Amino acid sequence: MKSYHLDPAGLTLREHEEPEPGRRQIVVRMRANAIGYRDLMVLAGNYPLPIRPGVVPGCEGAGEVVAVGADVTRVRPGDRVAATVFPRWLDGPFRRDDAAQLGTMLDGVLTECAVLDEDGVVPIPEHLSFEEAAAFPLAAVTAWNALSGSGALRPGATVLALGSGGVSLFALQFAKLAGARVIVTTSGAEKARRLRDLGADEVIDYRAEPVWWPRVRDLTGDEGADCVVDATGPLEQSLRSVALGGEVALVGYWLSGAEGARPVEPGLLFGSGAVVRPVATGSRAHFRELNRAVAAHRLRPVLDRVFPFTQVREAFEYCEAGGGFGKVIISHAS
Amino acid sequence: MKSYHLDPAGLTLREHEEPEPGRRQIVVRMRANAIGYRDLMVLAGNYPLPIRPGVVPGCEGAGEVVAVGADVTRVRPGDRVAATVFPRWLDGPFRRDDAAQLGTMLDGVLTECAVLDEDGVVPIPEHLSFEEAAAFPLAAVTAWNALSGSGALRPGATVLALGSGGVSLFALQFAKLAGARVIVTTSGAEKARRLRDLGADEVIDYRAEPVWWPRVRDLTGDEGADCVVDATGPLEQSLRSVALGGEVALVGYWLSGAEGARPVEPGLLFGSGAVVRPVATGSRAHFRELNRAVAAHRLRPVLDRVFPFTQVREAFEYCEAGGGFGKVIISHAS
Amino acid sequence: MKSYHLDPAGLTLREHEEPEPGRRQIVVRMRANAIGYRDLMVLAGNYPLPIRPGVVPGCEGAGEVVAVGADVTRVRPGDRVAATVFPRWLDGPFRRDDAAQLGTMLDGVLTECAVLDEDGVVPIPEHLSFEEAAAFPLAAVTAWNALSGSGALRPGATVLALGSGGVSLFALQFAKLAGARVIVTTSGAEKARRLRDLGADEVIDYRAEPVWWPRVRDLTGDEGADCVVDATGPLEQSLRSVALGGEVALVGYWLSGAEGARPVEPGLLFGSGAVVRPVATGSRAHFRELNRAVAAHRLRPVLDRVFPFTQVREAFEYCEAGGGFGKVIISHAS
Amino acid sequence: MKSYHLDPAGLTLREHEEPEPGRRQIVVRMRANAIGYRDLMVLAGNYPLPIRPGVVPGCEGAGEVVAVGADVTRVRPGDRVAATVFPRWLDGPFRRDDAAQLGTMLDGVLTECAVLDEDGVVPIPEHLSFEEAAAFPLAAVTAWNALSGSGALRPGATVLALGSGGVSLFALQFAKLAGARVIVTTSGAEKARRLRDLGADEVIDYRAEPVWWPRVRDLTGDEGADCVVDATGPLEQSLRSVALGGEVALVGYWLSGAEGARPVEPGLLFGSGAVVRPVATGSRAHFRELNRAVAAHRLRPVLDRVFPFTQVREAFEYCEAGGGFGKVIISHAS
Repeated sequence: MKSYHLDPAGLTLREHEEPEPGRRQIVVRMRANAIGYRDLMVLAGNYPLPIRPGVVPGCEGAGEVVAVGADVTRVRPGDRVAATVFPRWLDGPFRRDDAAQLGTMLDGVLTECAVLDEDGVVPIPEHLSFEEAAAFPLAAVTAWNALSGSGALRPGATVLALGSGGVSLFALQFAKLAGARVIVTTSGAEKARRLRDLGADEVIDYRAEPVWWPRVRDLTGDEGADCVVDATGPLEQSLRSVALGGEVALVGYWLSGAEGARPVEPGLLFGSGAVVRPVATGSRAHFRELNRAVAAHRLRPVLDRVFPFTQVREAFEYCEAGGGFGKVIISHAS
Repeated sequence: MKSYHLDPAGLTLREHEEPEPGRRQIVVRMRANAIGYRDLMVLAGNYPLPIRPGVVPGCEGAGEVVAVGADVTRVRPGDRVAATVFPRWLDGPFRRDDAAQLGTMLDGVLTECAVLDEDGVVPIPEHLSFEEAAAFPLAAVTAWNALSGSGALRPGATVLALGSGGVSLFALQFAKLAGARVIVTTSGAEKARRLRDLGADEVIDYRAEPVWWPRVRDLTGDEGADCVVDATGPLEQSLRSVALGGEVALVGYWLSGAEGARPVEPGLLFGSGAVVRPVATGSRAHFRELNRAVAAHRLRPVLDRVFPFTQVREAFEYCEAGGGFGKVIISHAS
Repeated sequence: MKSYHLDPAGLTLREHEEPEPGRRQIVVRMRANAIGYRDLMVLAGNYPLPIRPGVVPGCEGAGEVVAVGADVTRVRPGDRVAATVFPRWLDGPFRRDDAAQLGTMLDGVLTECAVLDEDGVVPIPEHLSFEEAAAFPLAAVTAWNALSGSGALRPGATVLALGSGGVSLFALQFAKLAGARVIVTTSGAEKARRLRDLGADEVIDYRAEPVWWPRVRDLTGDEGADCVVDATGPLEQSLRSVALGGEVALVGYWLSGAEGARPVEPGLLFGSGAVVRPVATGSRAHFRELNRAVAAHRLRPVLDRVFPFTQVREAFEYCEAGGGFGKVIISHAS
Repeated sequence: MKSYHLDPAGLTLREHEEPEPGRRQIVVRMRANAIGYRDLMVLAGNYPLPIRPGVVPGCEGAGEVVAVGADVTRVRPGDRVAATVFPRWLDGPFRRDDAAQLGTMLDGVLTECAVLDEDGVVPIPEHLSFEEAAAFPLAAVTAWNALSGSGALRPGATVLALGSGGVSLFALQFAKLAGARVIVTTSGAEKARRLRDLGADEVIDYRAEPVWWPRVRDLTGDEGADCVVDATGPLEQSLRSVALGGEVALVGYWLSGAEGARPVEPGLLFGSGAVVRPVATGSRAHFRELNRAVAAHRLRPVLDRVFPFTQVREAFEYCEAGGGFGKVIISHAS
């Protein structure tokens, strides 16, 4: 079986023996992966956490259980599962000793066969294909965590999602399931149209309107959004858009060093009357809870383009070029 | 102007001068009322709290502000408002010194002109008629409170509502707005049909199936319902139907002394693994929050029958006969 | 090394080879155990959950890590640790698939050497001996969970603890650390004196005053207790003692079939205005959080009597006779 | 009776007739006030909210009820009460329509007789003098709110309070009541000594150690503080001092434009893994809850210096000069 590895020379595909699961481990034959911005950073060497040399990259994947080790009670061979990005973060707040994540210090899922903890996977909703299921572990879990900290996952609430990246698209879809009103910022008429098709109540073109927070206040009768899912910044505009008593869920765009990452005044943080909460993916409990909603509503993720497993490099190049809409998927289908 | 009063001789309609609002008070020309089980108990003298002799009964009403007293800042003449049942319970948990309620110690709203605290009303969503708006203050606020204590007002959650009384109907409607799955118990094919029309995913006929909790477990893959809105009992079956970590929201049916009010074993409470929480209406904050959802989704309540203000007695008789579906409304029109 | 086993013939001590830890497992040389009511039920065959034949009983123990298996990152040989009763319940609400507990289906800790999950232990605060540390896993975790669900673990709150069993004693000690006022029910002057020594603000002798709830209301200016830690019942009196908006934390005494387990009316549950929450031990997160408090305040548990490992049967007999005060400890010290 | 007023010419003392209470109002004969930084800003004209010309300044005061208006049910003549800064913020989150505060748009309490809402006062704990009671409405309520949003008001938690201003002193005192460990930053040996006398576990001299966050991490075994009560900034150091999953309670120092108010990078907000929550005083519910703790522990506030009512100007000058420790009090005692 083959795995990609982050070798000093770059991304290489190497052949391995079929792995054996240890106690409480399982072997998953990967059927699909997703890749994204986080992977690009890992590959480019500017991810802010240590990377083990030779590690198998990739933190998003779905497949079929083909073997289980001793003492495994939660899954069985034949189960369709998706991996969780933080295999030890099962529930409750994030803790330092649950911080190991797939594809940085732990081997990830850009492989034909992954050895995973039985606690590090969740069942896939029946209506989803493996390609669809691979879209969830990072962006959907982040979106669900971002929405569920405040009272925004409720009918009548207003959610503002910044940009049309993966986290925003899931935030839009989940918030609509919950009966919330959703405002999204994006660029261009085509993306705006697609966002509306996904249920966005209002779309703001940030190219046409770079200072968009007055529009948000206007659209909300000056109340502001109950939850801002801020995956792009600028945080300053999020703080001016959020409702008193609301929450800005801060996703990790700040890494970019880009314009969105400009510093903010403490006075603006204070004056917003809202909480700022960092959101770094989520726990297995978040994943299970969102899957329940996804299954109940037969929700499908937005996929951008599907590449075969042999063309992971091309997929990364496509991803890096930007401009897509939805998740970039790697399929292991022959 | 005329008001109904609970006189020693029974319900009497008396003529009064137009009232003047005191400081922070408003006068509301009532346009519609709703009546229900609580009012029947008050009239019959078996409500468990003291009733002031001669009090104006009725705790559900909607109308138009016609005068405001000194220091009123929250409403203006012409505003369409609904009264809150507990005018001093504004937010947070229920407290003993916020316990004064309309129609028992405080004069209620079965009147042509009510003098109310400016804090004791909420604006009516635009799309609702006064008759529709009068349906909300008791049953809808109770249902929202019941649903919002747990994580059940979320997509993917399962709500079980017992019976097809006012609280259950609103619980069904609100839970559907939130993307939850809803199971309702009722009797008869006609009510079952109407519940399905309102969005119920599953309807259990408790006449055909008096021990219905195994059905609930079956319908939920043995997980149980995340929230049981228990407005009828028996509590024992609620406790057997609720999910581990879920909540039984206990509404006041226990007053009836009926079969639903049978005692429960502490072992059953323990073994359910779920919280039992008493729900007695809700605060102004609950009312405002649900109104936001009602407005956003243009939700309409289920009305059973509308009686003119002169036929309040007939309305009570109708109400007492039972068997209706939806709220019984009193209209002041014409 | 020797282990006790629940054999068809009763409790037997058998010799075994030194165990080897599997992946993510550790071997702990047990230095002390505690036993209690739960163990008596397991031994007597009236515990309400299945028991694996031949299982090693005991769910409370502390010792030293002597070996670690593959992939163990959280503990090292030489660490002093206490076992958690539910090794898979790490954080968040209790879930069915985390329900395996020590000493029923999983081998417990009445052994010289236990093989445990690395996630199934917590470090012992430095100031505690092994005998003291063995007192915590069941009663202290239950007490902390019971207190921390409501706002009762705060200065100015009032806690009512029923009886002077293990859970009550820890509830008393923890609530005092938190600046709460504590009322305890007990029987006899000697226990009353010892409870006062531990910080109890008020002690009610339930023999002298079997209907003690009016005393609680009296002592609280009729407000009631914010949290009732109900480890003995009767639940009816707890419901009459609890504050509006408070919580009755229901611990598993109901198993007894005793007087404390009498059924309660739904009307009483409703009328209390308080939540009833079942508390079945707690998670590793609860244990870690309480250990932080224990370490900061150098709190010591109340120990009743210490038996050597060879006299476990005598210890159970002592335990069964009742009348003690504090935990019954088994010491492995030669 | 006399009141201070913010006239165009400055602070003037004017004579008035004894006021009459309106409906649901009370007249309080003020016996003591406190003044502080907020009042200095109002006087200097750089408070960020509108000030009504001629308003009576002052938001902290305690006195005796001398008259009650119609429909008053919560207080009686003779009651000792303290005013709440936001008379309409009773419970729950802060809302825009509860924003009226004493001494800016509403007449404040630097007067011999204040007309207040019955909902705008809380009873004074018995053991406190009026001078002591006057110290609580602003700083103590802010400190309680700041501490109670997270899990920091619990035994074993670590609280970091910045500076030795009023909010910090109360935060220290409350956190100690709750069994938390408290680290305080201050300047100079004398203040450090006094903080230790009040129970501070650790004091850091920010003059000697301007970059003090590494000390906080060191003192907490690199865990960080569970709650940072940040009343002075710099926020950057708070974010580096807070624990993963903790909270920075942001009090309004940012107004100063001082060094503490430097902008922070979104990446630092994200990387802290902690919530930033603005804290602007608190509700009546906060005040009542803290009073319960204050009464139970007979806690006394730290008073700096007491000025007579005729010397309010001197008191403000003293206040402005800075360097004090504890609240500056105005006494109406003849």
